[in-house]
Amino acid sequence: MNRPRCAIGVDLGGTKVDIGLIEEYGKITHRIQSPTEVEAGPEGVIAQIVSGIRQLQNQSGLVPEGIGIGVAGQIESGTGNVFFSPNLKWVNVPLASSIRAQLNGIETLVTNDVRAATLGEWLYGNGKGCQDLICLYVGTGIGGGIVTGGRLITGVSNSAGELGHVPIQREGLACTCGGYGCLEAYAGGWAIARRAREAIQASPQDGEFILKLAEGNLQSVTAKIVSEAAKQEDLLAERLMNETAEALATGITGFINAFNPQKIIMGGGVIHGFLPLVDLIKERVEGRALKVACSVLTIEPACIINQGSLLGAAAQIFQSRDIKL
Amino acid sequence: MNRPRCAIGVDLGGTKVDIGLIEEYGKITHRIQSPTEVEAGPEGVIAQIVSGIRQLQNQSGLVPEGIGIGVAGQIESGTGNVFFSPNLKWVNVPLASSIRAQLNGIETLVTNDVRAATLGEWLYGNGKGCQDLICLYVGTGIGGGIVTGGRLITGVSNSAGELGHVPIQREGLACTCGGYGCLEAYAGGWAIARRAREAIQASPQDGEFILKLAEGNLQSVTAKIVSEAAKQEDLLAERLMNETAEALATGITGFINAFNPQKIIMGGGVIHGFLPLVDLIKERVEGRALKVACSVLTIEPACIINQGSLLGAAAQIFQSRDIKL
Repeated sequence: MNRPRCAIGVDLGGTKVDIGLIEEYGKITHRIQSPTEVEAGPEGVIAQIVSGIRQLQNQSGLVPEGIGIGVAGQIESGTGNVFFSPNLKWVNVPLASSIRAQLNGIETLVTNDVRAATLGEWLYGNGKGCQDLICLYVGTGIGGGIVTGGRLITGVSNSAGELGHVPIQREGLACTCGGYGCLEAYAGGWAIARRAREAIQASPQDGEFILKLAEGNLQSVTAKIVSEAAKQEDLLAERLMNETAEALATGITGFINAFNPQKIIMGGGVIHGFLPLVDLIKERVEGRALKVACSVLTIEPACIINQGSLLGAAAQIFQSRDIKL
Repeated sequence: MNRPRCAIGVDLGGTKVDIGLIEEYGKITHRIQSPTEVEAGPEGVIAQIVSGIRQLQNQSGLVPEGIGIGVAGQIESGTGNVFFSPNLKWVNVPLASSIRAQLNGIETLVTNDVRAATLGEWLYGNGKGCQDLICLYVGTGIGGGIVTGGRLITGVSNSAGELGHVPIQREGLACTCGGYGCLEAYAGGWAIARRAREAIQASPQDGEFILKLAEGNLQSVTAKIVSEAAKQEDLLAERLMNETAEALATGITGFINAFNPQKIIMGGGVIHGFLPLVDLIKERVEGRALKVACSVLTIEPACIINQGSLLGAAAQIFQSRDIKL
């Protein structure tokens, strides 16, 4: 019997290293998760990854075709160097070549974690078969991946898809990126939390319920707590979620008119923390985006939760031998 | 001696039909322009095009490989039907098949005029050799064309590139498209004229100079007149142009962060009517767009004026036999 092709996927974030042995059709057969040893520096984290991969190989007895890594950071195209990762505190780390050197020259490909998640959703999730697809991940920050004409776009310096930093307001709020008016500055988890805190301070009575969920500590108010309060029909939380939906709908209207996608898939903690957001956004986008651009469009939540980047990271290996991404 | 390949290009707008015989390397050897006989309906306009093409063939004695048409309207991908063209007052006109039927089955390809202009600028103009390029045309309306990874994107229903209808304001001004907050509603020619008229009404003293250029008639104030006044350093006109630059910079920041282009080429009457706009936009984009997305970016005016759509329309024929767009 033929064994399916397999590859190692690595999802490398600031808090967690997630390593899996993945079969070509998206099955995770073995998996190891551990907290990222950020303080050990790049060498330490790379050693942690190498040791995890060896462990998986031993456990499974399989020989993977290669290693695909998704990293929370900016990746240099071609080399697999990590330009910059604030979460890992990395600057110019030659990740792909280091892994390759320590594992007998095995093929190693590195991409950004959001792009990996897009690849996962595209190949194995709700985006399957789509030629024109946008994945929008709304967590603390907002990131995106764009497939157009059957190809995941990278841009000239490998940074395409920064959809959280598309402005939705001409003279808008300052963003963590140094710009202003960005979608993320209105709808990212950090922005929701900030808006909630400001609203509570401005009107403590309206904020009573949210503050209670945060155990009375204003600084502990997070987007997650706001979502919880909205689920329990707290008026302020509902208002904050409506504002979030309006901001996201503004950005998404632009994505629809610019890219004319077949599908928009929404993932990330803010979306999965309060799924009614997807319908609130749909209502607002209808009648606002161009009719011709919406003729076949669907907007739906991501179906691969907590493993999109892992699957997509590994899929780079299968893709690299099949089609040009 | 080998003759270069040649094709017919047609730029079909609501006011003018522009037909040219184009050599593969972008030389227009013969050209006929005439006012569009919109009132004669689709059949009349198609007869006008066919007669122009025959005339060019007779004049040149050459046999073109095919006919490429750029139309101000929405085009159905694959069939070359014109879905909808407000300027021509056309709905569902089988343009490609009608031309083909009347000209012995010659290969006939139809695209949107803005996409044709993008193709022209990409193959023969300032975009030459670029794999990641955005063309933004700011005239009465605003349209765009997007090349990413060496391909001109179409989207799932052939409407990608409607960059004038990307919102730049959450609860913004109404747009002609039925949406609100669109870039075009702030920076399109019609919006500049509207803002000028409002400003003149609000403060007739500030508006004195612009109004004089419009021969005292408020309704005759156009974006072109505002540009003229700005060139002559009229304060209100300069303010209006600064606002236009701010709106365009907001939109363009989003395009940079989303697409990570190598080049942004700006064309259309508003840009060429007041070229300092390009520098005003650059100043505003710097420091606002993500550094990584700007690392190799240039923003420059289009170099092909008044014939980009014609050249690009014809280029469809050369492209269709070479590479997949």
